[in-house]
Amino acid sequence: LSLHAVILAGGSGTRFWPLSRVKRPKQFLALSGTGSLISETLARIAPVSPPGSAWVVCGKDHAALVQSELPSLLKSRLVVEPAARNTAPAIGLAAIYALKADPDATLAVLPSDHVILKSEEFRRSIARAAEAAQDGTLITLGIKPIRAETGYGYLHRGAARGADLFAVQAFVEKPDAKTAEKYLADPSYAWNAGIFVFRADAILAAIERNLPALHEGLKKIAASLGTSDEQAALQEIFPRLPSISIDYGVMEPEGKAGRIALVPGDFGWSDVGSFAALPEVRALDERGNLLEGDALAVDCDNSILLGQKTRLLAAVGLKDLIVVDAGDTILVLPRGRAQDVRAVVEALKAAGRTDQL
Amino acid sequence: LSLHAVILAGGSGTRFWPLSRVKRPKQFLALSGTGSLISETLARIAPVSPPGSAWVVCGKDHAALVQSELPSLLKSRLVVEPAARNTAPAIGLAAIYALKADPDATLAVLPSDHVILKSEEFRRSIARAAEAAQDGTLITLGIKPIRAETGYGYLHRGAARGADLFAVQAFVEKPDAKTAEKYLADPSYAWNAGIFVFRADAILAAIERNLPALHEGLKKIAASLGTSDEQAALQEIFPRLPSISIDYGVMEPEGKAGRIALVPGDFGWSDVGSFAALPEVRALDERGNLLEGDALAVDCDNSILLGQKTRLLAAVGLKDLIVVDAGDTILVLPRGRAQDVRAVVEALKAAGRTDQL
Repeated sequence: LSLHAVILAGGSGTRFWPLSRVKRPKQFLALSGTGSLISETLARIAPVSPPGSAWVVCGKDHAALVQSELPSLLKSRLVVEPAARNTAPAIGLAAIYALKADPDATLAVLPSDHVILKSEEFRRSIARAAEAAQDGTLITLGIKPIRAETGYGYLHRGAARGADLFAVQAFVEKPDAKTAEKYLADPSYAWNAGIFVFRADAILAAIERNLPALHEGLKKIAASLGTSDEQAALQEIFPRLPSISIDYGVMEPEGKAGRIALVPGDFGWSDVGSFAALPEVRALDERGNLLEGDALAVDCDNSILLGQKTRLLAAVGLKDLIVVDAGDTILVLPRGRAQDVRAVVEALKAAGRTDQL
Repeated sequence: LSLHAVILAGGSGTRFWPLSRVKRPKQFLALSGTGSLISETLARIAPVSPPGSAWVVCGKDHAALVQSELPSLLKSRLVVEPAARNTAPAIGLAAIYALKADPDATLAVLPSDHVILKSEEFRRSIARAAEAAQDGTLITLGIKPIRAETGYGYLHRGAARGADLFAVQAFVEKPDAKTAEKYLADPSYAWNAGIFVFRADAILAAIERNLPALHEGLKKIAASLGTSDEQAALQEIFPRLPSISIDYGVMEPEGKAGRIALVPGDFGWSDVGSFAALPEVRALDERGNLLEGDALAVDCDNSILLGQKTRLLAAVGLKDLIVVDAGDTILVLPRGRAQDVRAVVEALKAAGRTDQL
C-alpha cells in the first residue's frame, strides 16, 4: 500500500479578508493559531504518508508561496495548474503524475484549508480508507456532524461493508434547518468534507466513465510527462478541460452506481468557513473571547480580536464582535455578519482598490 | 480696553486615549477635524485679541508641544507651571504676568480643549464680557443648553444688569436627569463652560479675598518677575500653592457676594467630553457615521470610525460603535461605553505598560 497525499491548494476566496488576499488565500493563513493550514495539512498526514510522497496542486500565482510554506515538498511534486478548473481536473492531474511515479499509488485527497483537531483519529480514518481502497473502491470520509449545519452537503450511508466501512446510499444537498436537525440526530448522515481516498488508477477509471472529455485531456498530458513536450501540453490542454468538481462530476454518479464507500471520521474537523467559525478551533478565554496578538479585552463576551503582535488592540464592552488587524487594513464587523466580508471586498473592487484585495 | 487671551492648557486626561497620551493630551488633538483644539482656540480669539497678546499656561511636559502648535505665541508669554495646581493658581499666575506686562490687562480665560462652531458669535460674547468687566466685575459666560446634560455645572442667572448681562443668582451642581430637563426648558439656566472674562487686577483682588494663601504666594512670585530670582521663586513657591479650581475657590464665593455677572453665549460650544461627543462637532454621513481617514463603512449606523490616512479601516453592519486607529494602538468600544476608555487605561497601568499611556 503506497499512500500519496494530494493536497489541493488551488482555492481562493474572500471570507478571511483582510487576512487573506488574492496573493495569499486562506490555506496560507495560520487560522488554527500555529502554522499555516497548508503546512499543518502536510504535517498531519506525514506519519502515514511521508512528505516526500506528497503532491500539492495549486495555481501558478501561489507556487512560490507553497514552496516556502512546505520546504519538505519535492519540487517535482508541486503540480501547478495553468488555470483554475475546479477539483475534478486538479485531482485527475495529480493522479496521472502519481501514477507515472508509482503505478501502485493510492491517493489521499486533502483540502489544504481545513482544521483538524485530532490528528491521530484523522490518520486512523485515512489508513482504514486506504486499506479499503485497494480493491478499486472510491472512499469518501463521512464526518460525524456536531451541529445542524445548513451550509454543507451530507452523505447518507447505507449498509455496512466491513469494519468502519459503509455503502453510500446518497449524496444529499445542503439541507434546510429542520432537515439538518434530523440529520444531526441520525447517525447515518455525515458531512461531506471533501476528503477522499482512492487508488490513482481507480479514480482515473472513474473519470473515464463519467467525464470522458476530461479523461481524454488527461491522457494527452500523461503521454507528454517526462518529455520535452510536458509543459507545452499542460499549458495548452489543461485550461480547456471541463471545469467541474470531483463531487458532482465523479463521486455522485459513481455513488449511484454503488462504487463509493464511506469511512466514518470523527476527528475535530472544521472547514473554518468564516471568521465566525474560528472559535470552533481555537482556545478561548473564560468569557468566550478569542484573543490573538497584543489583544486586550475588558468586559467583552464572545468576541474575536485578531491583533498584531506589535500593535495593541484594546476593546471594551464588546459582544459578539469581530475585529481583525491585518497590518495594513483593519476590519470590524459583528459575528452574525461574518459572511458579509464580501460586501467590503466588492466595495473595494468597485472602487478600483486592487491593492487591498 | 486691552484684551489678553489666557489659554489654559494644563489639562490631562484619558477619555480620548489612545489618540490622547500622557505626552499629548486632548488639547493637542484635531478633534474638530481640522487643526488641534489649542491652535483653534488661539485662532478663534485672535480677531479680538491678537496672538501677540495671548498667554498660554501649561505644564512643563507640554511646553515644547505648545510652542510647535502655536508658532505665533511669544515665547515670553508661555507660562510654564512647575507643577499642576488646578485652575485658580494657573489663572492667578497668568494674571500677575499679564499685569506686569500691561497694568490695564483684561483677561479672557479660555479652556484649550473645547470646540466652538460659531466663532463670530463667540467673539461677540467675549467682546461684550470684556466691556462689562471694565468696572471690575468678574464675568462668566453662560452657555445656552441644547440638551438635558447631567455632566455639567449650571449657572442660574438673576436680574438683567444691562444688554446681554445678568446677575448670577447661583452656581448649581451637576443636576439629576429630571432637574436637567427642567433647566433645559428654563432660559435662566446656563451651562458653566469655564470661560471667564475679568480684569487682571480684579481677579487678583478676588483671589486675595477668597484664597489669601494663594494670593500671598502669587505676590511673592510677582515681586520676582523680571529679576534673576524669577525662575527660582516660581519653582519654589508655585508647587506649594493650594490646588483648587477657580470655580470653587473664587467664582462661587464671589458670586454669593454678588460680584459675578453673566454674559449669555450661544455659539455651538462643546467640551467634547468623550469619543461619543464627537458627532456633535463633526460632519456625519447620511446614516449618522463619523468617518475619518481611510474609513469604509458598509451598512453601518451612528458609528465613529477614526482611521488613519494610510491604513484602511473597513466596517460592516456596525451600530453605535466606536473604532479608533491611533497608529500604534487600536481601540474598539460601543458608543454607550465611551467613558470606559479609562478601564483600558487602568488595565494598562496595572500591567506596567507605560509606553501605551
